[in-house]
Amino acid sequence: MPSHVNNSPVTETRFVSLDLPEGGFRLRRGGLLRRVDVAYETVGTLSERRDNVIFICHALTGDAHVAGRHEGEDHDTGWWANMVRPGGGIDTDKFFVVCANVLGGCMGTTGPSSVDPDTGEPYGSRFPDITVADIVDVHCLLLRQLGFDHVYAIVGGSFGGMQALEFAVRHPGFADKVAVIASGASLTTQALAFDVVGRNAIEQDPAFRGGDYYGGERPDAGLSQARELAHITYLSGEVMKKKFGRRRRDIPPTVPEDGKHPGPIQSVFEVESYLKHQGRKFLGRFDANSYLRITDAMDEFDLVQGYPSLADALEPVRARILAVALDGDWLFLPRQTADLSHALLSAHKDVSSLVLDAPAGHDSFLIHIEELSRAVSGFLERVPVRPPPPIDADHCRDWDALEALIPQRVRTVLDIACGGGALLNFLSSRRPWADCTGIDIDVDGAVSTLAAGHNFMLADVDEGLASVPDDSFDCAILSESIQVMRHPDRVLSHLLRIAPIGLVSFPNFGMWKIPAELVFRGRMPVTERLPYQWFDTPNIHLCTVKDFLDMCRAKNIRVEKVEYFSTLAVSRVFRLFGARSLGTSRVLVKIAR
Amino acid sequence: MPSHVNNSPVTETRFVSLDLPEGGFRLRRGGLLRRVDVAYETVGTLSERRDNVIFICHALTGDAHVAGRHEGEDHDTGWWANMVRPGGGIDTDKFFVVCANVLGGCMGTTGPSSVDPDTGEPYGSRFPDITVADIVDVHCLLLRQLGFDHVYAIVGGSFGGMQALEFAVRHPGFADKVAVIASGASLTTQALAFDVVGRNAIEQDPAFRGGDYYGGERPDAGLSQARELAHITYLSGEVMKKKFGRRRRDIPPTVPEDGKHPGPIQSVFEVESYLKHQGRKFLGRFDANSYLRITDAMDEFDLVQGYPSLADALEPVRARILAVALDGDWLFLPRQTADLSHALLSAHKDVSSLVLDAPAGHDSFLIHIEELSRAVSGFLERVPVRPPPPIDADHCRDWDALEALIPQRVRTVLDIACGGGALLNFLSSRRPWADCTGIDIDVDGAVSTLAAGHNFMLADVDEGLASVPDDSFDCAILSESIQVMRHPDRVLSHLLRIAPIGLVSFPNFGMWKIPAELVFRGRMPVTERLPYQWFDTPNIHLCTVKDFLDMCRAKNIRVEKVEYFSTLAVSRVFRLFGARSLGTSRVLVKIAR
Repeated sequence: MPSHVNNSPVTETRFVSLDLPEGGFRLRRGGLLRRVDVAYETVGTLSERRDNVIFICHALTGDAHVAGRHEGEDHDTGWWANMVRPGGGIDTDKFFVVCANVLGGCMGTTGPSSVDPDTGEPYGSRFPDITVADIVDVHCLLLRQLGFDHVYAIVGGSFGGMQALEFAVRHPGFADKVAVIASGASLTTQALAFDVVGRNAIEQDPAFRGGDYYGGERPDAGLSQARELAHITYLSGEVMKKKFGRRRRDIPPTVPEDGKHPGPIQSVFEVESYLKHQGRKFLGRFDANSYLRITDAMDEFDLVQGYPSLADALEPVRARILAVALDGDWLFLPRQTADLSHALLSAHKDVSSLVLDAPAGHDSFLIHIEELSRAVSGFLERVPVRPPPPIDADHCRDWDALEALIPQRVRTVLDIACGGGALLNFLSSRRPWADCTGIDIDVDGAVSTLAAGHNFMLADVDEGLASVPDDSFDCAILSESIQVMRHPDRVLSHLLRIAPIGLVSFPNFGMWKIPAELVFRGRMPVTERLPYQWFDTPNIHLCTVKDFLDMCRAKNIRVEKVEYFSTLAVSRVFRLFGARSLGTSRVLVKIAR
Repeated sequence: MPSHVNNSPVTETRFVSLDLPEGGFRLRRGGLLRRVDVAYETVGTLSERRDNVIFICHALTGDAHVAGRHEGEDHDTGWWANMVRPGGGIDTDKFFVVCANVLGGCMGTTGPSSVDPDTGEPYGSRFPDITVADIVDVHCLLLRQLGFDHVYAIVGGSFGGMQALEFAVRHPGFADKVAVIASGASLTTQALAFDVVGRNAIEQDPAFRGGDYYGGERPDAGLSQARELAHITYLSGEVMKKKFGRRRRDIPPTVPEDGKHPGPIQSVFEVESYLKHQGRKFLGRFDANSYLRITDAMDEFDLVQGYPSLADALEPVRARILAVALDGDWLFLPRQTADLSHALLSAHKDVSSLVLDAPAGHDSFLIHIEELSRAVSGFLERVPVRPPPPIDADHCRDWDALEALIPQRVRTVLDIACGGGALLNFLSSRRPWADCTGIDIDVDGAVSTLAAGHNFMLADVDEGLASVPDDSFDCAILSESIQVMRHPDRVLSHLLRIAPIGLVSFPNFGMWKIPAELVFRGRMPVTERLPYQWFDTPNIHLCTVKDFLDMCRAKNIRVEKVEYFSTLAVSRVFRLFGARSLGTSRVLVKIAR
């Protein structure tokens, strides 16, 4: 049992009746609720300045009990206990976490099974259609009623991510930071299709009776079928194979009356009994009408609706956004997070986007991904006053030169292949007003870069740059990494598409040592800057300074400045003989469109 | 209207009552059928030698009408009309095509809706459980009854691919060639899970009555739900988005009786009306019991069952196998085709495997993929007596030298990065007894290599080699392509894992021209053999002959022979001075474990 389990905080579900305007709470699609109750829980301690509140939006069938022990329980029974805990991704030693059940639900917040004050009966079929906007507005009213006109962050996964996003658009400025995990600005067509089939199963169940089944038989067959189907979409094919494969479970033989084919002992696939178990278990805690209303709100959610583009829809956003996708997720696709991130960049918002390894699929965000915790924790870090950065001595001269070439007007900088963000830290210590973003493939780099207060895009650079919109940055840097790109020319053209100016530094393959090694050792050169063997080198597109300048000419790239670096005295000799390239180990080039 | 439509052959459905052994047809899972009727169709003309028969296995809900016009129809109404037609992938001008409805079906072959001769009533719930083996045995009996003890080829897609595979195992030697398209040796766990939910929908429909619904109300709600769900799995998410997106179709507004929330005009998502349409349409042509029995046979199909490995299960196979996967298919995964191909290679069978571009998903194999037609057509080509191959003059000397280094005992050769198969053609003209296989990424190369009678693996070489089992070949060749590999060292170690000896030829980056260009032109060399610019070159891991030999030493690769090639007289000068590498443009190395 991990240590956090025993010291998990105690919590309880509280209920609040919202102070509504005269007449009640008017819904986006025309309905009206005269009374709205909300169930919520809190974990952690509110700071004296009341500035450490994090609101968590739960997923489709979740509830307010995000984390902590209820009275009498001996361990944390919250649905996100791995994330929300002392020292966790959302650290309850630092933050005061609030989570509330959604409107339309059946876990304490007003929903179809609640009593309609007009009739004294459960709403049933008369419960109005709800939208994500309504859910968010109810939660915003709750937070204000609890005395919070502003929170530090809002975090949500899956359907909760849709709510977090709607919150950022609908109540800009309410939160400083918003994290959207395994979610999107709308459902995919495929996810819609699954919902259609699931809803049909409920609505065609004879016990459903149009939604007015309270007090009678419940549409259990339909609801459990819908849940079974949904459960398939929460897991990746890979994890299903691993968990169940084609294994079977024996069931007693059934002998038909005519005795013609009694057959051997029957068995069912384990995946079948698992799904049926999930379907049955769901009946004990969920209401079919709530399932219909909430999935309907999710299906209808489409941020772009009414706007020319998603970027336009996101225009009001003021929070810093973290968008996390899971690579094994086929319900909410990484592509949806990429589209969201693209739109936010187009709208010139602060956005970080990550695709994390999650072979188990959509549900991974609930179960536990160590990388997700670290990324969320990095994102939620409060950026300290920036100290003078520790600078790699070797880089010192290059970075000084590089920084000197960045025009004063530059406000947004992208460092391509930024590693752990060291160059960004250096730049923002020199230019505290600049907004820095890094792109690279390494999760550790993402965490440290996020925690330093920069934006980060976790992506293979060769592919990731293609998804950055035109003119997203004032300046882009490619420091000592053009030679590792699979397509250096495409990377450069993307660089000048997404920023009007670029700074590129690289090792010069024309330096005298290289041909010398080829001739005298008969081998591919291995130098301090190019320390790899030919077969395992990441430096797959080496070039000389002349090659680089040739390419710029051929591709109509304007070269504004070339700086030559060398640590060797011999370089001066080559320079005297007009062969400066032979004496140059590194080159820094400023390019522009 | 394409030209083939008007001249499509006329066909009709024929019915045969199988000559069964005394007692009837005994099923694998214990049942017995006293009478089995089979519905079949033929297209094309039987050759005089009766050696041009292709049997086609249909998919889950297909029928015998694979291609052709029925009397009175003005166009080809077959379910695979695009593939099976004059000049098509399965060319009805060349082949005599036979297709039959499966056992358990409802399209003319005996199934649950057929009349049980014992009772004079439809079987219903009393129809015995069937397996893929039973389906295949019925079809084998049919073919023998039609006078065919041997066919040229068996082709099947999806569930039809499972039948084709079972045919190859169960009746080895019955067909010379077997093509398995978008299929696998068993269902994935995820596909099983979808079947579970679909079957539940039927069985929980009150009208199902345990399967004895004939003459009364049919379980239409359940069957259409199962079909809706299955339909989602036949399409990729991408094509669903493209076809339907989030578009809506208006439906008349419904005003609830209490008038409280009449709402705006209602609309449904197009994907919803599409799925419901598919569900309804299915009711007109399919029977719920058939659906249950056939999906059950599919779920239970698992070639490996009862064997230590899939390779062992495939041991009886004698046919040449083509296994084709579709990259957008998420019902039958490319991984399943890879597993099948791996097992066939382990069992030292003739196997070709391709992954084709199919963004629309599983159904693509039915709809039309030009590449699929070409691949199947290439595979079905009868290999002519091999003519003396046209040889690229430039390669002549290298290939002669290469062939001379292959030991006489070699029976199976793999050419890595084989292109269009020219080297394989050359080798098999010199060694007609050798069994040649090529691996490369290009579909055109696959088609020409297949049509020349070689095996082909369509794969990225860097990744594809990893999935070839140990000791699959006697000799592997890597001709002029090690420098384009992302991981040359890994490729070499795979090469010597899958074959005991290897022949590797490559351009020598240590040749005098290269450092000379670096020094005197100051640019990365562009030569006849290395004609690319630095930034777009596929040659990302260049090496000198010494580098290569160094690596072999470091990796414990035995070098048996090194041959140096040069077209230049100057090479002799370097040789005199003991610097042979400087004068060598190409190198051929024979390596061994």
